[in-house]
Amino acid sequence: MNGARALLDTLVASGVEVCFTNPGTSEMHFVAALDQVPEMRGVLTLFEGVATGAADGYGRMAGRPAATLLHLGPGLGNGLANLHNARRARTPIVNIVGDHALSHQRYDAQLQSDIATVARNVSSWIVSSTATDAVAGDAAAAVAAAAGPPGSVATLVLPADVCWTDGASPAPPAAAPGAAAVAADHVEHVAALLRDGGPAAILLGGRAGHGPALDDVARVAAGTGAKLLAETFPARLERGAGRPPVERLSYLGDFAAAQLAGLRHLVLVDAASPVSFFAYPDKPSNLVPEGCEVTVLAAGADDVAGALAALAAAVGAPPAPPRQEPARPARPTGALTADTAAQAIGALLPEHAIVSDEANTSGLFAPVHTAGAPAHDWLTLTGGAIGQGLPVAVGAAIACPDRKVLALQADGSALYTIQALWTMAREDLDVTVVVFNNRSYAVLNMELDRVGGGEPGPVARSMFDLSDPPIDFVTLAAGLGVPASRADTAESFVSHLERALDAPGPRLVEAMVPPIV
Amino acid sequence: MNGARALLDTLVASGVEVCFTNPGTSEMHFVAALDQVPEMRGVLTLFEGVATGAADGYGRMAGRPAATLLHLGPGLGNGLANLHNARRARTPIVNIVGDHALSHQRYDAQLQSDIATVARNVSSWIVSSTATDAVAGDAAAAVAAAAGPPGSVATLVLPADVCWTDGASPAPPAAAPGAAAVAADHVEHVAALLRDGGPAAILLGGRAGHGPALDDVARVAAGTGAKLLAETFPARLERGAGRPPVERLSYLGDFAAAQLAGLRHLVLVDAASPVSFFAYPDKPSNLVPEGCEVTVLAAGADDVAGALAALAAAVGAPPAPPRQEPARPARPTGALTADTAAQAIGALLPEHAIVSDEANTSGLFAPVHTAGAPAHDWLTLTGGAIGQGLPVAVGAAIACPDRKVLALQADGSALYTIQALWTMAREDLDVTVVVFNNRSYAVLNMELDRVGGGEPGPVARSMFDLSDPPIDFVTLAAGLGVPASRADTAESFVSHLERALDAPGPRLVEAMVPPIV
Repeated sequence: MNGARALLDTLVASGVEVCFTNPGTSEMHFVAALDQVPEMRGVLTLFEGVATGAADGYGRMAGRPAATLLHLGPGLGNGLANLHNARRARTPIVNIVGDHALSHQRYDAQLQSDIATVARNVSSWIVSSTATDAVAGDAAAAVAAAAGPPGSVATLVLPADVCWTDGASPAPPAAAPGAAAVAADHVEHVAALLRDGGPAAILLGGRAGHGPALDDVARVAAGTGAKLLAETFPARLERGAGRPPVERLSYLGDFAAAQLAGLRHLVLVDAASPVSFFAYPDKPSNLVPEGCEVTVLAAGADDVAGALAALAAAVGAPPAPPRQEPARPARPTGALTADTAAQAIGALLPEHAIVSDEANTSGLFAPVHTAGAPAHDWLTLTGGAIGQGLPVAVGAAIACPDRKVLALQADGSALYTIQALWTMAREDLDVTVVVFNNRSYAVLNMELDRVGGGEPGPVARSMFDLSDPPIDFVTLAAGLGVPASRADTAESFVSHLERALDAPGPRLVEAMVPPIV
Repeated sequence: MNGARALLDTLVASGVEVCFTNPGTSEMHFVAALDQVPEMRGVLTLFEGVATGAADGYGRMAGRPAATLLHLGPGLGNGLANLHNARRARTPIVNIVGDHALSHQRYDAQLQSDIATVARNVSSWIVSSTATDAVAGDAAAAVAAAAGPPGSVATLVLPADVCWTDGASPAPPAAAPGAAAVAADHVEHVAALLRDGGPAAILLGGRAGHGPALDDVARVAAGTGAKLLAETFPARLERGAGRPPVERLSYLGDFAAAQLAGLRHLVLVDAASPVSFFAYPDKPSNLVPEGCEVTVLAAGADDVAGALAALAAAVGAPPAPPRQEPARPARPTGALTADTAAQAIGALLPEHAIVSDEANTSGLFAPVHTAGAPAHDWLTLTGGAIGQGLPVAVGAAIACPDRKVLALQADGSALYTIQALWTMAREDLDVTVVVFNNRSYAVLNMELDRVGGGEPGPVARSMFDLSDPPIDFVTLAAGLGVPASRADTAESFVSHLERALDAPGPRLVEAMVPPIV
């Protein structure tokens, strides 16, 4: 068999069953081999940023990697922003980048570039396969590297002739290193800090945001009186009725400082020490208050869930965590705003929904109004590279076909990867998209003021203005095959959203809202 | 004044008067300063690939750089594909990438990444400004580096605090090195080869594709009997009635081999030695026939125009080049195909039009049917990274506001940077876009066969298929503010295209055509 076939067989044997593709000539043998390996689902995207963002959404929900299939250095470039977000989310992804045939690379043809260099920032592992009889083993190693822990982007560069040459055979799955147990005395040390060290908070991220680990970290907080916080932009946070309530650290440094004020200890659980998202003149970047000691319980290759279970035992935590009471806001009436739209979402969110949140300023009220909605997962923009929300929704819907996906999407950010709508239609994914159309890059109005840019003149203001010409998301969705409707009042938004959530398959609701700032 | 203001003043003083922007928080002081420097035109784009592609189109037509304004590593990633094309086109671009404040970088905040690494492949020059009193000098150096010759992408990384701190002052333009004269004895050597060396061809690219250099290279060919060829994907080729006719080297290796067969000498004028675009099993990558000697007349930092003028004198070339006779095809009737659409374009192309050609397979017939149309410029996909055509049209229209721009655009490629339509509407650019909608990645059907991928199965075929759901470009254009119409017959295409070309401002015509393969 040729290299492409052996590669696909190996990926499937290693548990990779979805490939988000945007192929070109150098990937043709990979594409041809898809017909021989029906266990691999190829999902076509119209733009690489959709492919990489979908792989991120898939990996966050499935807990195992999807593959991508990108076309040389420029295709990787197009996918880089969402790989950056995936790196920050510690999502496992097998990132496959086709390359010119080895025999062709010396000629510096038009598409030639140094793919490894482009991949460097986002990848924990980069290998360019150099022989047909090596490619299957490289693929198995890529899956293991991606799986971690921690999850990461493993980039496999795939020269065309390595794929098309015969003489390959599939490789067995590579042994993953497995998580490293956190030492019992370190757990005991953290337990002592939380019990006796004065005011403390636990900041959770990554693997602590869902499943038994979330229950355990909430038990620890309940048992010690520590404040429980989640990082500002978690990769996946389970929440809603019956799940432990967790407050997220604010994006705004002043608010975050208030959340952390007076702490003597901050314990990090698979989370980074809190820093301001951007720098601002005369504001601190480091959000940890003076006199507060930062201690890492578990991170990286550590067994996060195991450490939390041990910590819960060490502090004598109650057997069950606090649980959020069910509560939904009333269906809103009157003007449609970010606030009333969030009330409608809280009123209607289906049980077990997956929320892909890139609503930015328009999403400010969504967490509070959905806090008591039926249990759901909340996926956020982990790396700040906008254009993530719709692709992540694609991947989450493919990972979890029995769950409704709700994408909360800002208008400006939607336009980076709007092509995701077509893949939702093509694959008939059960995604409801809400686009909050405030006809501006609203966050920048706020940020210009925060960085001390002064009162903006007309030119600066025009750089945040998306009103001329107005962008019509109902029409854009129709052009890409997704049925859509527009809401101008709270009542109409409730009605459109309810119909969209009730319908199987993709729907888009454009919510016309004023900017919140 | 602060660093941002000094930077803008310096760019303007150095001849950079347009900046294609997609800013974020770290670029706010740059944006705020635009109100103080009205000589700099800020052109907002919805996606960084539009900004970088527009800078490419601008630089190709203006002959001097535009600036970009991108947001950290992920913004640069989104712009990378069109910077790759610009690198291959040797287009001068001052590529400005905002970064976190220097004081913030140690904290590894969410958007932090190594920007220089991402920029490496596409940039001839990368500097990260480290001080407010250095940024103006860095900007002047960036303009000089970009200008060349050869033109290139100069990347200036701009930390936010370098911009917002006071104490900067503008810098004068940096001295450009200027082109290096080609030695007279080398010109004489090439003249001797062309006169007496047996069958010869001249392959032109870059700066030899337009202006007096094009006249001179055509005079040399006429005076020596050498065959005159242009590289397959020229950055800018002047053609049409009254300009020298030049045959382009074929994309298909077999056809290119036929064009080069029997040559004893191939003289390169600002062009790379011809290689196959992709590798194919059992086909040569190097297209230079055995026994043919390759000689570079001028390239890189050389004075290409001066070398050609000297060569024309050395070979005793006729005083004027051969000139294309005016000839237009009749307006086509009947079925709308890539061929009849090209006839319509040839029948209607306005004088001095700028054609941005990313029509791919559907554009096969456009060069032949426009050969005798009124004089025009033809801009092509120089680096193979699709998604270039619409952004290049934006930039060309801004560089040349008195000329009609015609973008010939394949459907699949259009969807990488479809956001360009909004900037066309916002800036009221005089661009007519023809989208050839064959509802497939048609080139891949051909390429799968050429790489020996065998008869595609249903899964492989589905990876080239854009018909389910069908993509409606009339609707997409309307959603982004560009009036559009659809043509299904040759007659209706003529009528829609004529109306679009007659109207000022942006228009889109969707041409429903069958795939040519």
